[in-house]
Amino acid sequence: MENPVLAEVTRGNVVKSRHRGAAIVVDADGAVVFATGDIERAVFPRSAVKALQALPLLESGAADRYGLTEAEIALAVSSHSGEPLHAETSLAMLRKAGREAACLECGAHWPSRRGRGAGARSLRSRAERLDERFLGKHAGFVCLSCALDEDPAGYVKAGHPVQQAVRGALDGDRRGPRGGADGHRWLLDPHLCRAAFGAGARLRALRHRPRLGPERAKAAARIRAAAAAHPFMVAGTGRFDTRLMGLLGARAFTKTGAEGVYCAALPELGYGIALKCDDGAGRASEVALGALIARFLPMDEATQAAPGPRCGRRC
Amino acid sequence: MENPVLAEVTRGNVVKSRHRGAAIVVDADGAVVFATGDIERAVFPRSAVKALQALPLLESGAADRYGLTEAEIALAVSSHSGEPLHAETSLAMLRKAGREAACLECGAHWPSRRGRGAGARSLRSRAERLDERFLGKHAGFVCLSCALDEDPAGYVKAGHPVQQAVRGALDGDRRGPRGGADGHRWLLDPHLCRAAFGAGARLRALRHRPRLGPERAKAAARIRAAAAAHPFMVAGTGRFDTRLMGLLGARAFTKTGAEGVYCAALPELGYGIALKCDDGAGRASEVALGALIARFLPMDEATQAAPGPRCGRRC
Repeated sequence: MENPVLAEVTRGNVVKSRHRGAAIVVDADGAVVFATGDIERAVFPRSAVKALQALPLLESGAADRYGLTEAEIALAVSSHSGEPLHAETSLAMLRKAGREAACLECGAHWPSRRGRGAGARSLRSRAERLDERFLGKHAGFVCLSCALDEDPAGYVKAGHPVQQAVRGALDGDRRGPRGGADGHRWLLDPHLCRAAFGAGARLRALRHRPRLGPERAKAAARIRAAAAAHPFMVAGTGRFDTRLMGLLGARAFTKTGAEGVYCAALPELGYGIALKCDDGAGRASEVALGALIARFLPMDEATQAAPGPRCGRRC
Repeated sequence: MENPVLAEVTRGNVVKSRHRGAAIVVDADGAVVFATGDIERAVFPRSAVKALQALPLLESGAADRYGLTEAEIALAVSSHSGEPLHAETSLAMLRKAGREAACLECGAHWPSRRGRGAGARSLRSRAERLDERFLGKHAGFVCLSCALDEDPAGYVKAGHPVQQAVRGALDGDRRGPRGGADGHRWLLDPHLCRAAFGAGARLRALRHRPRLGPERAKAAARIRAAAAAHPFMVAGTGRFDTRLMGLLGARAFTKTGAEGVYCAALPELGYGIALKCDDGAGRASEVALGALIARFLPMDEATQAAPGPRCGRRC
């Protein structure tokens, strides 16, 4: 059974390209408000759940211990562009924990994956291979490690206390394929997204996670507030998440993932949204997410007319 | 009726994304050798037919009059990267015709499209808005215009002799939607592709174009030879067309178009190939084209093992 067309690319009246996919919206009781396509198919949510991975940074007290600002918390949940402010803010986070860029392991192919010989790589060559999209997330991981009084070395490895804490945040009573040091291997599940980012008070009936503890609810609220106040930090200049949250503020938390995945929460409705374009196209997942938000979130005409949510127009 | 999956993106054993589409291969008699998906659906072939648009540059004698090199002819059929050698070679072509960059109109939104007021734009501001991917094609258009003893001004307009010549090359007895000053609005048709790039002697039985005149066959052969000798000029560093033609030489002429379109010819077989990915993904059209070439073109193990044609692996 094929998935329906979520977005089309047109030239005049001619459809040039079509993007198929699946999407689901659930309410605070876990009931399905809207669904289209095969919502049972397993996918990798990838960076779309980065905000969940950052929960331990708040829950552990690390953010308070190192006095992380709202902008820095927003950066910790980001898939940011390589703009100078992103890199500078990442380094500022590390310095607050008494560390330097050399301890970052994003994209550095930690030896466990490629044999011990790779361990001989110099810090300099490692730094050159850092994936700059993930500096913020990894700076958050290093802060968490330090707050846990653990050596950050190897914090990307499955056995490291940082990854154990991250898995705990992602896990709950989740079922489905697991594995991967980066926590990417999970079923796409809007409940998961809503658990962290929906309105905390309304999450008690959540099917897979019957109660959101007060610490987790507070951490999720802080992350949402940080992203709403600093949408630039979550993505970057001209990026869809940045423009959408810049437009809607705290009314929507949105997070893109690789290969056409999107997760979002509409806190005032208690809604969680998850979608995946079959072909992995970000341009289509953006349009589809915008259309879903415009469909459910009441907004005035000026907001409707802005590029982005209305009719799924891309920013 | 949905189109079949042409390419998949995997992570381990999990399929992360799927790309659907249609493809056709025809032989020198116009018979369908292979077809999958809805091959009747109208598409814009876009830059995939750029080599056809360049035929008048050869047929008119412009290339010989201005002493264009093989590299310059290859550039005239390109969708090149913005690398310095592409821009320098484009300017060299213009200088051979006694012109400068100021007369280029690629991406300059010629006044007829946006009202006469736009005509007041300075040459400088126009130059800043040039689409550098098309410098080579447009330099070829300017050379053609000069060889026709026509003022190049307005060469992108439908009524200009340059566009009339280009339409003539694309047209024949073609049917289907037409229009657009850039000649993009055509049915995707492998016969069209094969007419110019298949083995000339075997094209007499072509259904829509019963005879390829000696001048056109010669022009097509020169374009193929130029692309085979200078694949860098047709695309650029690391680009699929460049690597594929660098690997296969004169055995394959391939040309990508926007939105997942590909046209190709395998002269020694007299085959023409055309394909379109539904979602417009270039990564999928490259894989699908590579798989089709590997299926039909005999090649030794070393070539099979190279990234690109074998099993549709991307370069």
